[in-house]
Amino acid sequence: MSRYYERLKPYMEKAMALQTALTLFQWDNETAAPKEAGEYTSQVIGTLSDEYYKTYINDEVKYLLDKLAGKKEQEALSEQEKAIVKEIQRMDQQLRPVPAEEYKAFSTLTAKSSSIWAKAKADNDYKKFAPVLEEMIEYQKRFARYRKHGRQKLYDILLNDFEPGFNMEQLDIFFGKIKTELVPFIQEVEKKMDKVEKSYEYDRYPIEKQKEFCNWISSYLGFNFNRGILSESAHPFTTNLHNHDVRYTNHYTEEGIEDSIFSAIHETGHALYEFGVKDEYTLTPVGTGTSMGMHESQSRFFENVIGKSEEFWTPIYSRLVDLFPEQLKNTSVKDFIKGVNKSKPSLIRTQSDELTYPLHILVRYEIEKEIIEHGANVKSLPKMWNQKYKEYLGVEPETDTEGILQDVHWSTGDFGYFPSYALGSAVAAQIYYYMKSVMPLEEYLKEGNLLPIREFLKEKVHQYGKSKTTNEILKEMTGEEFTADYYIKYLKEKYQKIYNL
Amino acid sequence: MSRYYERLKPYMEKAMALQTALTLFQWDNETAAPKEAGEYTSQVIGTLSDEYYKTYINDEVKYLLDKLAGKKEQEALSEQEKAIVKEIQRMDQQLRPVPAEEYKAFSTLTAKSSSIWAKAKADNDYKKFAPVLEEMIEYQKRFARYRKHGRQKLYDILLNDFEPGFNMEQLDIFFGKIKTELVPFIQEVEKKMDKVEKSYEYDRYPIEKQKEFCNWISSYLGFNFNRGILSESAHPFTTNLHNHDVRYTNHYTEEGIEDSIFSAIHETGHALYEFGVKDEYTLTPVGTGTSMGMHESQSRFFENVIGKSEEFWTPIYSRLVDLFPEQLKNTSVKDFIKGVNKSKPSLIRTQSDELTYPLHILVRYEIEKEIIEHGANVKSLPKMWNQKYKEYLGVEPETDTEGILQDVHWSTGDFGYFPSYALGSAVAAQIYYYMKSVMPLEEYLKEGNLLPIREFLKEKVHQYGKSKTTNEILKEMTGEEFTADYYIKYLKEKYQKIYNL
Repeated sequence: MSRYYERLKPYMEKAMALQTALTLFQWDNETAAPKEAGEYTSQVIGTLSDEYYKTYINDEVKYLLDKLAGKKEQEALSEQEKAIVKEIQRMDQQLRPVPAEEYKAFSTLTAKSSSIWAKAKADNDYKKFAPVLEEMIEYQKRFARYRKHGRQKLYDILLNDFEPGFNMEQLDIFFGKIKTELVPFIQEVEKKMDKVEKSYEYDRYPIEKQKEFCNWISSYLGFNFNRGILSESAHPFTTNLHNHDVRYTNHYTEEGIEDSIFSAIHETGHALYEFGVKDEYTLTPVGTGTSMGMHESQSRFFENVIGKSEEFWTPIYSRLVDLFPEQLKNTSVKDFIKGVNKSKPSLIRTQSDELTYPLHILVRYEIEKEIIEHGANVKSLPKMWNQKYKEYLGVEPETDTEGILQDVHWSTGDFGYFPSYALGSAVAAQIYYYMKSVMPLEEYLKEGNLLPIREFLKEKVHQYGKSKTTNEILKEMTGEEFTADYYIKYLKEKYQKIYNL
Repeated sequence: MSRYYERLKPYMEKAMALQTALTLFQWDNETAAPKEAGEYTSQVIGTLSDEYYKTYINDEVKYLLDKLAGKKEQEALSEQEKAIVKEIQRMDQQLRPVPAEEYKAFSTLTAKSSSIWAKAKADNDYKKFAPVLEEMIEYQKRFARYRKHGRQKLYDILLNDFEPGFNMEQLDIFFGKIKTELVPFIQEVEKKMDKVEKSYEYDRYPIEKQKEFCNWISSYLGFNFNRGILSESAHPFTTNLHNHDVRYTNHYTEEGIEDSIFSAIHETGHALYEFGVKDEYTLTPVGTGTSMGMHESQSRFFENVIGKSEEFWTPIYSRLVDLFPEQLKNTSVKDFIKGVNKSKPSLIRTQSDELTYPLHILVRYEIEKEIIEHGANVKSLPKMWNQKYKEYLGVEPETDTEGILQDVHWSTGDFGYFPSYALGSAVAAQIYYYMKSVMPLEEYLKEGNLLPIREFLKEKVHQYGKSKTTNEILKEMTGEEFTADYYIKYLKEKYQKIYNL
């Protein structure tokens, strides 16, 4: 028991309460709030965000953190307390070096920049967005410079915010393998793909029945409806107030069935992570998934690795056919698996398939490095984007709307975020091969027995929250650090098996 | 411009942001949150409530309020600023005299007391509730004693929290008139009531169609769906984050149509009040309805005064019949009006009709006086309750569940709250007669033209928020202070007219 830690606790409780309130406002905004509420509600959100910042960034907390960094104090802390102090220190190092006024100006810009982006995207007018993007880049580089130690690279600092412990050195190796191994493999796969039929996806599916199936499959995967709720929003997402209140949204259109089903499975993967965090950790700074990439590994493990396998669908496919007998009458479970895994290079990241997805991220990673490390001119980016799409995916956008303007991330200053998406898929594959070595994974799936899978992930990943890093979790589970090898192996084996390449 | 006021502003903004967050948590809890979230979410709510308290109750705010009370400073303030300072002073006087630890202990009790009440009510076991009730009474009396000036009566202090400017002297006159004028009139009405048929209410009404009608009628009354949303909860209620985000809930059962329709009209009345508050006032301490009673006057004006009149239903009744042709085929608009106004003394306040409603409040008012002013023993209350019901309403509860345990209010320490319900009806009647003297109210209703009615209330009542008291609003509008006379007159005229007494 440390008295400095005791003094830190009320700050932590206050910050967590404010953060939870902000999460609820965001959820409410996406799912319920009336159209014209925004202008007034954003004042409230601004004030609460400001309070959150001030709760951690002040002289007393700084003093306590310095004291708690000492060897004797560290010895007095439990493992959990150490992890919490470390996480608060991380936030402190992220926020304190940035002058408060600059941070506020940046927040003000962020509040309006995404609507400027949305307008530019709708109008296919990159010129409208370019000045805001330039300002955003300047802020991110300046903030990174404030935080820089020694020879640290700026982009490494940004990457580290989303994926603690990862840097360009590792990512260059990772994306290098994707480039050398995957790009030629995909070209080979594409030749076979034109023959794959998926006429079922061009039929109409009544929304109420889709909802029924999606709710059921979420529950089948382990979503606990006593500790969570579902809603709808323009883009599916998962959030949580704590580990007893986990929420995700889905979206439904009558055209096609894949979108809503695989969104439900994906978001349930995120939700299971948050349900699984230990009670002692929830509502503390370490009470949530450890990183973007690890979170994405859980959603993609369920969505792609098991969720698009024949074993997974074997016990449950008839349930889907019962709901949609007309639409699926000519589609066997094998046809369905071929269909949902069909790969085709395309322009839009969020609509792309599992195989080509990492190439979309590769494009963004290379451009972000150019922007942050090599001062690429904002004017040059659309051309750069289009060239890379042509080179890696063999397709070229005809408009900036379906090119460089497609993603919201840069408009809110989130540089260094994209790589986590690809890392998530790779971590999922690494976990998958380890699981297969310690349990009859395919058998469980065929029996419709998801419990041992969920329990395994809870024990090895979910329970720790942020108290262990992605690499610590992987090392302790598999004995190995992160590597891209399993990912490449997984994609090759999977596509070879399904399509007899 | 006062520099003291400028220094007060950040406290106010922070308090308003916290209060808005607390409102959102409450809304979410009633409409969306998963069943098992409560234990963790209540920690968050506890921390935010604590912060709210500390934001207003601290030395700096006390210092600023003292400075701002000075004559010179008052002169430097705008009308709006004066009203805001006055309201913060009122809260300060309410909270500061109570020692923080006692207030915290009281809050802890409140957090569990309503579930003890709910259990006792479900089990018809007053003994289980009695000790908590006694503790609650002790807290309320103690807190009132801390706040007492001179010869002030304790119950007057409590009444004033809900209805600023009202006290026992006025309420004794008010309830005296109800006793002497209304009790005999009701006995006379009841003799005629057995003949009133309302078989339509014993039919079944599909819930989706009820929702369709309720949404429509809300919109007809002026609910702005760009600035508000509807949801469902166990008990209907209205709340708002600010004047651009107003929300109410309804509840639906297949049995009968009156409940959902008149709840929709009632809650829309509350909602229109909050929509109507001036933009400059919203998100300030004066940015909401001025009192419980005035709020209830608006909901009851719409629900009862106009909403149960033949004129109101004349242009719209066919719409209801179109939705429910079978159920309403033998019910003319006149029959419907007779039906919805049917009066019958009953045991449960929330299910009672407009005419007998004030007698339910009379019972509670007299018992609260006994409790707070004359030290009535908690053990004696059920008997006292039953005797008064017999005396005023002619009915006697067979269980405490349908007697003294029926309402939640006392379990959360809300003594002095009930009278506002009856005051609301009386204020509505007073406004009604004034409106009839300045506009062709009945004509507007028959034409389906609600706009002039809404605009009148917005101009005379809604826009001011808490910047004027109930009495100031009534005086400026009608030239008279509050009086019960219009209420008695209204009820007599209405029932005489509908039933040809």
